[in-house]
Amino acid sequence: MVFENPKIKELLGKTRVLWALGHAQSVLAWDSETYMPRQGVVDRSMALAELAALQQRLLLREEVVKLVEELVDEEDLNDYEKGVVRVLNRRIRIMKALPPKLVMEMAKTTEEARPYWKEARDKNKFELFQPYLDKIIDLSRQAAEYIGYEEHPYDAALDYYEEGLRKRRVEEMFKYLEPRIRRILEKVLSEGRYPQTHELETVEYRKTDMERVNITILQNLGYPFDRGRLDVSAHPFTIGIGLDDVRITTRYEGKDFKRTLYSTIHEFGHALYDLQIDKALRATPIANGASLGIHESQSRFWENIVGRSRAFVEALYPILKDNLDFISGYSVEDLYYYFNTVKPSLIRVEADEVTYNLHILLRFKLEVKMIEGEYKATDVAEIWNEEMERLLGIRPKTYSEGVLQDIHWSMGSIGYFPTYTIGNLVSAQIYHYITKELEDFHGSISSMNFDVIREYLREKIHKWGATYPPAELLRRSFGEPMNPKYFIEYLEAKYLA
Amino acid sequence: MVFENPKIKELLGKTRVLWALGHAQSVLAWDSETYMPRQGVVDRSMALAELAALQQRLLLREEVVKLVEELVDEEDLNDYEKGVVRVLNRRIRIMKALPPKLVMEMAKTTEEARPYWKEARDKNKFELFQPYLDKIIDLSRQAAEYIGYEEHPYDAALDYYEEGLRKRRVEEMFKYLEPRIRRILEKVLSEGRYPQTHELETVEYRKTDMERVNITILQNLGYPFDRGRLDVSAHPFTIGIGLDDVRITTRYEGKDFKRTLYSTIHEFGHALYDLQIDKALRATPIANGASLGIHESQSRFWENIVGRSRAFVEALYPILKDNLDFISGYSVEDLYYYFNTVKPSLIRVEADEVTYNLHILLRFKLEVKMIEGEYKATDVAEIWNEEMERLLGIRPKTYSEGVLQDIHWSMGSIGYFPTYTIGNLVSAQIYHYITKELEDFHGSISSMNFDVIREYLREKIHKWGATYPPAELLRRSFGEPMNPKYFIEYLEAKYLA
Repeated sequence: MVFENPKIKELLGKTRVLWALGHAQSVLAWDSETYMPRQGVVDRSMALAELAALQQRLLLREEVVKLVEELVDEEDLNDYEKGVVRVLNRRIRIMKALPPKLVMEMAKTTEEARPYWKEARDKNKFELFQPYLDKIIDLSRQAAEYIGYEEHPYDAALDYYEEGLRKRRVEEMFKYLEPRIRRILEKVLSEGRYPQTHELETVEYRKTDMERVNITILQNLGYPFDRGRLDVSAHPFTIGIGLDDVRITTRYEGKDFKRTLYSTIHEFGHALYDLQIDKALRATPIANGASLGIHESQSRFWENIVGRSRAFVEALYPILKDNLDFISGYSVEDLYYYFNTVKPSLIRVEADEVTYNLHILLRFKLEVKMIEGEYKATDVAEIWNEEMERLLGIRPKTYSEGVLQDIHWSMGSIGYFPTYTIGNLVSAQIYHYITKELEDFHGSISSMNFDVIREYLREKIHKWGATYPPAELLRRSFGEPMNPKYFIEYLEAKYLA
Repeated sequence: MVFENPKIKELLGKTRVLWALGHAQSVLAWDSETYMPRQGVVDRSMALAELAALQQRLLLREEVVKLVEELVDEEDLNDYEKGVVRVLNRRIRIMKALPPKLVMEMAKTTEEARPYWKEARDKNKFELFQPYLDKIIDLSRQAAEYIGYEEHPYDAALDYYEEGLRKRRVEEMFKYLEPRIRRILEKVLSEGRYPQTHELETVEYRKTDMERVNITILQNLGYPFDRGRLDVSAHPFTIGIGLDDVRITTRYEGKDFKRTLYSTIHEFGHALYDLQIDKALRATPIANGASLGIHESQSRFWENIVGRSRAFVEALYPILKDNLDFISGYSVEDLYYYFNTVKPSLIRVEADEVTYNLHILLRFKLEVKMIEGEYKATDVAEIWNEEMERLLGIRPKTYSEGVLQDIHWSMGSIGYFPTYTIGNLVSAQIYHYITKELEDFHGSISSMNFDVIREYLREKIHKWGATYPPAELLRRSFGEPMNPKYFIEYLEAKYLA
């Protein structure tokens, strides 16, 4: 048995209703983005607000808080049990620290800010969003003070999204990464082997054909359609509704088929994580991923390390040829380079493997300075453009393709962006170990037989759920904490070899 | 303002979370029947059980119960406010009356019984289901004792599904209906104008064609697709997720297209009810229909009274001809009789307008005798067959097409069936008044312009939600309680004229 301690069992009994509410909220979220009729949004918003408040009340029940407090000091717990206590204690600590007034003001501000951000982006008018950004930064700073931190208020923001992550660590990481990435980028651009654009980017496809491709690839990757679905939404996402119900979405833009293809593979990576969590953890507070960064490492591993590898492109080729008539005019080599263009570009979500983390570096720097109060919102629009020029040699002509491109700040998600880089780094770290520990990693990809790779990830990462915090999970599985050198090694091997 | 009393406002504030939970439960129910991946059922069942228990706890909070108790005697309330108090008081009264142990035992028994009922039906082995039926009847009888009743324990079972309905009233109703329906049936059968079968029953259709027909008809009826959806499920249903999100489902069997057609129109009738509830009632305990019977009156009104009328079939004809190639071989007359076959048959859900209520009479009689303890489950299988022979002149050859055909008993729904007949009777009563009060009822149908009909139903029934109990709603809207004579008048006018 995974859970044996009687107090833990009592705690799990009392908190199962939180899991059930989370289950319901996930289905509502999925429905809102996929099938909900347009006007359903009025009832839906009201219901979600009520359920969020209810969940908070249920978590902070005295009987729950007291049990958790008693269990924090209990030594006779196994790792799963400790995980349950750690996760609940963390949530309680944050929720208790934040005054309800602040939480409500943040909710109200971001609710109001969202449409202004959209309008600002659509009309290229930063001044529409700017006052909200100042407000959101101010509230985030206040939240950091309430939650507490050791060294820097941005630590509290980071820790909220990635347990244990600190500003100092992210700075070290980027100090290591920045010069190396820029050097690699320069070489790639000067050598010209990896192109900056590809004519396939303009070729149109039929949605039904591409749907068939995505489904076929998911089947080959091992996505169980009796435990999930592929739907369409404006922004692709994965949602874990239960350990046997993990759904993904994609979108079809009608051309440049690699976009829907790699977005689908990316979401598969997220989904596989949740699908391989130990069933014994079902309906508990640790029946989910260890952190956003570890989750992103899984999506990036499948999207980039597996999906953009030469072996995968070779194995993929017949499937593409069978379903997309225009493929016959291209070779495996053509496709490999189409899937692996490298180009300094303005938009983060379109960035390639080499440049992506520089986009995150930019955001991280600005967030830190804003939280410190050194930059105001009025400053960041121009600083953004200057920094882009410094990092990537290109300057946004509009704020829409600069500071206004991401939704995150309008949602109050300060401290979120670095988790994307964590994901990239960890995916390369896993690549390092999997090629060392699995006999024929690339052979498995070539034969589209992913059993051993799925199994490896299951044992090293997935099955544990949130039993361990991210850093401990990595140490336990690979004998060392996160190390950015593997990412640079990966880029060098792939792009400079 | 609809809600002005400060205590009512306080009560609505405290119970909005119940509405939100109901909203979530509805989405989960919809999802379970439409898109949920097969293996999602494990997490789903657990979550639904938790949420049901949570809803009960939230309803029975002392602060809520106390407020309701105070408001029951409050005289200075408007009708909407009284409705809120009545509905909550009723729910609290029933939930408080039933011992948790009994509720759990009923849940456990029906959970276990369902697969045995299915197997019994599939294998024609009544003995597999029989012990569960005895248990379910015993528990229902116990529930009736706890809930209380004035005259007969079956009153409690009836009232649970149809507020205010009593066994004595149902008996009177059937005493009036039975001889008249049987007389009409005999005449229809002997005259032979309405056929018993039709060759179109065997003609196959393409699903995509029929989908187009259903959508076109829903659009013509005035179903707003930005406030609802049409999906596919094993058993068609309507679900009110919110006042602006009311979804329906249908199924496509591949032949006998009237089945999916009239099932879709039936569900439209249910949906229109919820869609036309006054928006001021949103997120309150009265933001739903007055009762199962009144709800069924709306579905039956559109399915039978509108949908199977000559005017509707004429107006429908061009749509069918445009989308189903085989229609060109048939006239409007042919279709009218195909849609209106009359035949004593064994299966309730396939029964026509004339015979349908006799199926309900049979079930009602058996339920009463079982609740009284006069019949045991072992008796009813044979009594069912004898009674079918007496009522309709046909005898089931198997229990599967007799006592085992309905899911209701296996779900513990004793007292539910009569609401179907209520629906039929009320639909005919509305027909009586609408033709008197609307200038050109049949002309509206012929021109497929249903605005005035929808508006009439909105004013008389829909907009009130559950403000009034069913009987009072009818009295207020039509000046008299439910009267079965209109149903007989309707049948006579249609089938014997």
